[in-house]
This record gives sequence, C-alpha cells and structure tokens, in this order.
Amino acid sequence: MILEEAVLSVREGDATAFEAAMVKAAPVIAGAAGYLSHELQRCVETPGRYLLLVRWETLEAHTVGFRQSAAFAEWRAIVGPFFAVPPVVEHYETALEWPVL
Amino acid sequence: MILEEAVLSVREGDATAFEAAMVKAAPVIAGAAGYLSHELQRCVETPGRYLLLVRWETLEAHTVGFRQSAAFAEWRAIVGPFFAVPPVVEHYETALEWPVL
Repeated sequence: MILEEAVLSVREGDATAFEAAMVKAAPVIAGAAGYLSHELQRCVETPGRYLLLVRWETLEAHTVGFRQSAAFAEWRAIVGPFFAVPPVVEHYETALEWPVL
Repeated sequence: MILEEAVLSVREGDATAFEAAMVKAAPVIAGAAGYLSHELQRCVETPGRYLLLVRWETLEAHTVGFRQSAAFAEWRAIVGPFFAVPPVVEHYETALEWPVL
C-alpha cells in the first residue's frame, strides 16, 4: 500500500465550492485501477489548507496509471481551478500502524 | 474525529533505530484518553522524512490531555532524540471520506 499525500491550498472564500467539487470528483479517482480509498482533511489552524490522502495498491498505480489517464484530466478539470498554488505531492509507505489488528 | 499530522525529519542513518523507537513508544500514546489510532508513514522520495498521523476523538485530547500528561514526556523521551528538527504539527477535520461506508 502506498499513501499519496497532497497538500492543497485553496483561495479564501472558495472552501465550500472546493469541497463540493471534491465530492463531485471522488468517483473519478475512485474508478482508477489500483485505487483503494481517499480522504480530504481540512486544516484547523490554517484556513484554505487541506490534506488529500489517497491510498493506492502501488506507487505506479498513481504516478503512471492514474496520472496518464483521461480520468486524471477529468479530475484536474473539476478540482484544479480551486488550487491557489500547485499541490505538493509526496508518497509514503507504512512503517507502523497502531493498534495492530 | 481530529487528525493530527506531524511531519518528522530523522537524521540519515537513524531510520531503523527511529522506527524501532516508534514501536516501543506506540503503547504510550495509545493509552492516552481520546486516542483512536495512529500510523507512521515513511516517505518514498525523501529519506528521513516521515508522517505521523494520529486520530483523536477531539482536538483537546491531543493539545491538552496528552501534551500535558506524563505520558507525553515519556513519549518524547523515547522518540524525540531522533528528530533532526522540531516536528511540524497541524490538526485536521475530515471534509470527505471515500468510499462512503
């Protein structure tokens, strides 16, 4: 499992419309091969700051499969206009999960 | 539910010992009132970079309850020596989870 983290910055006043766009765009990313789940987290301390956390089966499912697909263009067309700056994206692999199931 | 995100930076060569320390420290944070779960994520692109994601029932369970407890001092004594720079901590509330269960 690979965790994609994207730090998103949305212009002041656009938060409600951005969150609605993310709901509309959710099925687009959720249909990608190797997609597992995602969540959008709204920062308590900094208005307009969000974390997008997407779980993928593999790194390539995101970086190759999704990013080179027509679905990615569709996704960015829906949510991209709200980004105040380009998203900062990094990938992570799990070192520890607690409680251990 | 509140998501705490801490961006952690660990010195080169300390990664294995740091991850072992996080396993040792896990029960210390897991015993805190209002703690739900946590995960440590290792960055694919940047060696020594980690995300610590902790889920709490409320903001205060972390910022007041845990941080002012003896358990926090114990936690920091175990994992703190590995931090190359002070952790950057922010809190988030869920705007979207997908798939919708």
